[in-house]
This record gives sequence, C-alpha cells and structure tokens, in this order.
Amino acid sequence: MNEAETIRYHAAHDGRPAELDLLDQTKLPGTLTRLVCTTIDQTHDAIQRLVVRGAPAIGIAAAYGVTLTPVDAYASASLPEVQARYRQTIDHLATSRPTAVNLFWALDRMRAIVDGFAGEVAELREQLVTEAIRIHDDDRQMCRSIGRNGATLLAHCKSVMTHCNAGSLATSMWGTALAPMYHLHESGHTLEVFADETRPLLQGARLTAWELHQAGIPVTVCTDSMSGSLMRQGRVDAVIVGADRIAANGDVANKIGTYPLAVLAKYHNIPFYVAAPTNTFDAELESGDLIPIEQRNADEVSYPCGADSPRHTPEGVTVVNPAFDVTPAELVTAVITEKGVISGPDTTKVRAHLDA
Amino acid sequence: MNEAETIRYHAAHDGRPAELDLLDQTKLPGTLTRLVCTTIDQTHDAIQRLVVRGAPAIGIAAAYGVTLTPVDAYASASLPEVQARYRQTIDHLATSRPTAVNLFWALDRMRAIVDGFAGEVAELREQLVTEAIRIHDDDRQMCRSIGRNGATLLAHCKSVMTHCNAGSLATSMWGTALAPMYHLHESGHTLEVFADETRPLLQGARLTAWELHQAGIPVTVCTDSMSGSLMRQGRVDAVIVGADRIAANGDVANKIGTYPLAVLAKYHNIPFYVAAPTNTFDAELESGDLIPIEQRNADEVSYPCGADSPRHTPEGVTVVNPAFDVTPAELVTAVITEKGVISGPDTTKVRAHLDA
Repeated sequence: MNEAETIRYHAAHDGRPAELDLLDQTKLPGTLTRLVCTTIDQTHDAIQRLVVRGAPAIGIAAAYGVTLTPVDAYASASLPEVQARYRQTIDHLATSRPTAVNLFWALDRMRAIVDGFAGEVAELREQLVTEAIRIHDDDRQMCRSIGRNGATLLAHCKSVMTHCNAGSLATSMWGTALAPMYHLHESGHTLEVFADETRPLLQGARLTAWELHQAGIPVTVCTDSMSGSLMRQGRVDAVIVGADRIAANGDVANKIGTYPLAVLAKYHNIPFYVAAPTNTFDAELESGDLIPIEQRNADEVSYPCGADSPRHTPEGVTVVNPAFDVTPAELVTAVITEKGVISGPDTTKVRAHLDA
Repeated sequence: MNEAETIRYHAAHDGRPAELDLLDQTKLPGTLTRLVCTTIDQTHDAIQRLVVRGAPAIGIAAAYGVTLTPVDAYASASLPEVQARYRQTIDHLATSRPTAVNLFWALDRMRAIVDGFAGEVAELREQLVTEAIRIHDDDRQMCRSIGRNGATLLAHCKSVMTHCNAGSLATSMWGTALAPMYHLHESGHTLEVFADETRPLLQGARLTAWELHQAGIPVTVCTDSMSGSLMRQGRVDAVIVGADRIAANGDVANKIGTYPLAVLAKYHNIPFYVAAPTNTFDAELESGDLIPIEQRNADEVSYPCGADSPRHTPEGVTVVNPAFDVTPAELVTAVITEKGVISGPDTTKVRAHLDA
C-alpha cells in the first residue's frame, strides 16, 4: 500500500466503522503521516485545516465524508428521516470551504443519489459509497486525460513554472497542472519544474517540490517574488496552474499569487495555461468577479511556521489573507480539461466545450 | 536616547575603544536590542548577517567600521604603514555585500581621506571619524530632501505600496522610499501603506510595518503574492521602492520581488517610483544587466523561521535565493533623489541629473 496516497477509503466491515484515511498534508514534507476520519466533524475539520486540499481532492474527500453519516444509530428510522440526515451532512460539509466549486459539485452528485433513492433504507449507504468511489475513479481518469491533453501543449518546453500544488496531492493521482509533467516524464521527456513556494502556506515548497522530487522530476523552489526574474532570464518556457473555480467567461480563481504570474507571463510572452477538470467550471457565474474568495486567518501570514513560532508582523498591524485571486480570461492562453483544450477562453468557447 | 536609532557611534574616550552601536534588525519586531561592534570583523559580520541593512545604512556602518581599525596597536608605525592598515580594512569591508553601491561609495570617501592625508599619524583617525560623521549627516539631509521631493509626486495619493524596507531602518532617518510618507504625515496628509512582506527575510512584514506603525502611519501587511490582486482591486495609487544600485541608463537593482511589482504596476497603470540618493547611481555601468546580484544561502528560503525551525523544502530539492532583481528603466515612472526627480529615466537624463 502506498503510504503517500492522498485519499483512501475503507468501507465499514465486521462492525468497524467506515474510514476516510487521508495523508496529512499539513505535516509534509517533514513527516509522512495519515489522519483517519470516522465522523463528519473530523472530515469537515480535515478539509478546513487543509489536511486534504486541492479542489478535486476536497470534492472526493467530501463525497466519502457523506458516507460517514451515522445512520446505523437510527436503525428504525424511515427513509425520509435517513435522507434528511444525509442532506444535513451534505449541507454541513458544503460549509467547509467556500471557493473551490468541485466540493459543491461532488456533494451535488451525492445529493442526487439521496434524493433519487427509492429502495430499502439499508441499501442507501451502499449506493452512496458506490457513488463516492465512482467520483474517485472518475478523478483518476480525469488526471490521465488532462495529462495527455496538456502534454501536447508542453511537448516543446524544457521548463515550466507552477504555483501552489495542483498535483497528485490535490487529486487522486497525477493532479491537474502537474499531470502533463507526469505524462511527459513517463514518455521519456522530463521537464524542469520551477515551484513557487506559495505563501502563506507554502504548498509549492512543501507539496509540489515533495511529490515531483519523489517522482524523479527535477524541481527548483523559488519564493513567489523570484518568478518574475526567472521569466526575465528566459528560464521559464510556460506557466501552468490548477484552478479552484472557473467562471463561464473563462476567468479563473486559483491560489493567491496566480494572477501576478499571469500578468508576468503576458509581459514576457510566455504561455499561461490552466489545467482543471470540467467540474471546476461554474457555468452559472458570468464572470470571475462573482466568485466568492475565502479570507483566511491572518495568523497564517503572521506566523510563517505556525502559532508556536515567532510572530513576524508587529502587534496591532493589519494583515490581509485572501486565499485566492482571480485571473481574467484575457490572460489565459488555454484551459486544459479532460475533454481537450480551450484556447483563448471566452463565454462562447467555454459553453461549447462544456456542452460537447 | 532613542533605543530604536538604526546606527550610533561612540568615539574612543578614556581608554575605551570606539563603538559602532547598531539596532539588531534581525531580532525585530519581537525584540528591540542593540549590537555593539568594536572590531572590523564584528562590523563585517553585522553587515553580512543583516544586523544593519539597507543600502545607505550599510554605507554609514562601513564608514564608521573603518575607524575601528586597531592602529593604536602600532603606535610606532609610520604613516604609510598606518595608511596600509586602513586600506586593508576598507578592502575587507567592501567584501561584506556585493550589490548595494552605497557601500563602495562610502568606503571610497574614507579611502580618499586615507590617501590624501599628510599630517601627523595620530590625527588620521580623527579625520576619518569626522568623515564618517559627515557621511552620516549627509544621509539625514538626503532623507529630508527625498521626502520633500517625493511628497510632490504622492500628494494626490491615498495609498501606496512598498517592498522590503527603505525606511528609517535602512538609513539614518526617514529612509528613501518611506521618506515621502513621513514628510506627508508630518504635514497632515497620512497615506495608507501596503507593505509586501518580502520573502525570504520578511523585511516588509518585520521592519517596514514596525517603523510605520511606531510612527502612527497606518500600514497593512500582505504577502508578496497578494500585491497583484490589491492593485487589481484599485487599492494601490502608487508603488514606491528604494534601490541598491542604479545603472547609468536608469535600470534599478533592488530587493528581489521589486521587478514583478514594476510589471504589475505597468499593467494596472499605476506609477512606479524609485527613491534613492544620487550615491546609489553607478554611472560606470551602462545597464542593469551588469549589476552583480548577491546569491544568498538557500536556507533563508528553506527555513522561514531560522535554522532551528522546521525545514519547508524537501531534502535534495534545489532552491534559488537571489537577493536582488533588476527593473528596467522603461518600467520606472520616475527616480526621486535628494536633488529632484528624474521622470522617465534614461542615460541622458540620468547623466544630466548627476552632473547638475
């Protein structure tokens, strides 16, 4: 068994409860340890604390989380009562993080099972487990397809820059932004990857660097402030990032620091690619300005090494900490999905791609 | 006496050696403590470890450092022997940091005193102390003049963004980039300042936020990766930074992360100002590409809270750590010096300004 697998699920058996078994990403790269959730609250907390993070991964984790609803405790309950319990869980897990749309997408798939169920009460959970496993399996397929589709765009590159972590740790395998690099590496063409450290939580330095290094792909870490000079020196052939939500017009919400990379890429005539599954699109939102941006605790900025480390901003000084920014579609060279590539995304092309 | 004064000097008296008395900026904002240097090696180390930092301040510190040469130990030495000793010190201090030109400028002023001296051996040190004090005094005048000249450019602004620390902690008072904000604040017009935290060493979060907060100027800290979205939201009316070296064509070397700010400012039609004394110009360098860029230890990136804190990049992964970047003159709206303002700097305008 792969100790570094992002998400595992063990169905209930022999009287033992079902387990959502997560690689604890807050401890990487120093410690490889897992966190096992058997309750809804543990799952909610794991998503909120970024034990599991990355838009596709939190969707998968939340889907499995729904199956942890303690319906056995209500053995004599009617189907409507049990359905109401599941809907409560779904509504609660939806409050764990506000920006990534995959969370809501996955929970909607689970809700559709609950709403459409008409069999024996005892069988509902089994159907929900099946659906969560299907979401997980679909994600693996998505990673492979994005890897293949992105590889065609990056085939001529020697080096790419990425931000935050949109790799295997953010999905079930390979990731989104990192999938083309894994695909190319498997086929013998290894790119050099520059990983922005990604303040405040350093997912680039801690996670992207770790997973690429494990895979034998050469990776160089720089601070977010160094990306511009690396581009100016001609060391970056393309930028590729993931996404937490994409509006109907192609505007992209992704980890804070993505937008400046897109502006810098434009200034240096470097292509800027976004890799994300189609379930990252929120077709109901006309533009990125409507995407809710999670504001996280300022302590993440003030204490770079956690609450028991020295404070780096003076007491009494205001600190802002938006977790995401929005990159307008005009700065996006192409969006890569499991279905193909949307070059120069706009509302017409996005709708056509999603309907195809 | 102001415990927060960046640099103090106590002349030798009653058999006690001269002291270069520095605010230890590596300990801010948590601890207000001073480091007293009585030897050349202590001074060299203090500059290298950033106990004292900021282009003008390291020039002043190095000038005082020259006076710590232990010539008393060679009481019977001839003038040429003593001059040789001083030149050794000057050469050694010049190796402490490579990028900021003010260091070499200040040491050249001290060297001119040594070279031109023709009196009694015992009087040379006194002349060197006088020259160092003059460098220190000139710097105070420079801060006031830059403050006044910059204030005219920022008078219509409500908010500005700055990077690293080019304030009172980087000079003898007021600083360069922060001088206009102090000047305006004194005259009743207080700007809101956004301070980029400035990875890897967090001088913005630790130093700029601290000194502005002490002065009653409202300051908001953001990570370097957040500057772009703050500009996009229209919250930044101007960007103003210091400089470590400016080439004859107006290209500016400054703290890593300056260049991306300049590109972002251009994209958002926000003026980008550089504030620096004329001794920051290196008229012998045709362009910024010729400026030597200090590469510092990668541990500054890998251990955000120091060597005894957790490592944030995986073992075996390459980490880059250039301390500075170069912003081409075409991105600089104006350079503000103690002599005035160079709008749209180029070689002709720079030479005319320096010769004026």
